[in-house]
Amino acid sequence: MDELKLRILTDGSNLGGGILKVDGFINHQVDPQLIDLCGKELARRFELVGATKILTAEISGIAPAVSTAFHMGLPVVYARKSKPITMPDQIFLTLAPSHTKGRVVELIVSPEYLGPDETILIIDDFLASGQTILGLVRLVHAAGSKVVGIGALIEKRFEGGYKVFADLEVPIEALAVITDMSEGKIVFAS
Amino acid sequence: MDELKLRILTDGSNLGGGILKVDGFINHQVDPQLIDLCGKELARRFELVGATKILTAEISGIAPAVSTAFHMGLPVVYARKSKPITMPDQIFLTLAPSHTKGRVVELIVSPEYLGPDETILIIDDFLASGQTILGLVRLVHAAGSKVVGIGALIEKRFEGGYKVFADLEVPIEALAVITDMSEGKIVFAS
Repeated sequence: MDELKLRILTDGSNLGGGILKVDGFINHQVDPQLIDLCGKELARRFELVGATKILTAEISGIAPAVSTAFHMGLPVVYARKSKPITMPDQIFLTLAPSHTKGRVVELIVSPEYLGPDETILIIDDFLASGQTILGLVRLVHAAGSKVVGIGALIEKRFEGGYKVFADLEVPIEALAVITDMSEGKIVFAS
Repeated sequence: MDELKLRILTDGSNLGGGILKVDGFINHQVDPQLIDLCGKELARRFELVGATKILTAEISGIAPAVSTAFHMGLPVVYARKSKPITMPDQIFLTLAPSHTKGRVVELIVSPEYLGPDETILIIDDFLASGQTILGLVRLVHAAGSKVVGIGALIEKRFEGGYKVFADLEVPIEALAVITDMSEGKIVFAS
């Protein structure tokens, strides 16, 4: 999506080591108009997959997932990284290594909001190594439901995350696909 | 706001001890259509305060704050509870006791996105004891900026948080004001 790519080039920065800083419009400060456009475009790309619900992970997945859900008319669930006191004792929990946090995080969903026989569209801000999204896939399968699509604002294709989901045979879409961040570059797939 | 109050009565639950569970439409599963309506109403109530930016706290503040920001055409910043590697070393940090987490949490904002001479509208999901929002106020003041309004989806008025902000002399608005949760009740201010 041209608006997002342009914004990454003007306001994003390549910090080296594969780290893309988008704190000015996605991850700390949010441009709600841009996020709305992104949600609308993700909704368009996944309109035919038959999703009944959207799943994301806190924290930075929330804004794009809520926007996509709004444009699809679907509820959205965000996996928590710690169990709030309002959640029942019986939960779905999985562990996912976080590249940017340098540690393993928990992803927790209540069975109240992730039941069996749902068709789930997973939306996150980044698709990089794929480990967070893979954790979400495990939660969906644990609940007896099915993943029908995976969408992200930004894909770092050189980290190979998309290969992790080949077996799922579902559409994988990212609005800005980056193929190379070596030597300070930000190169998009054409 | 009637839509929100009705939803609290139908899908929320009073867990006792002043804990209101709204995990089915705000805090874990999100109803994006309801959040959009709430954001539109908060935007209407604060349209004349002259805000240049919205500030909230991760995690559950994000959805309502992004929606309000969308309808006001403003950027929104969410205070982080841990410092991501993309953030500079020099930051604004404050501590806030969290009632629902039972511990003290850090609230961190980068000076890149909270500068001096801004007029800040604070939006969160809950106004209860006011401690999280008070932490956000301290961050705004540390940055040399001014708070011009405080908005929440739900206020638990019996926890008295609104008194904490009397000195600020700014409008405080909540879309559903609860005055009593004793004995399993959920009583709204008329």
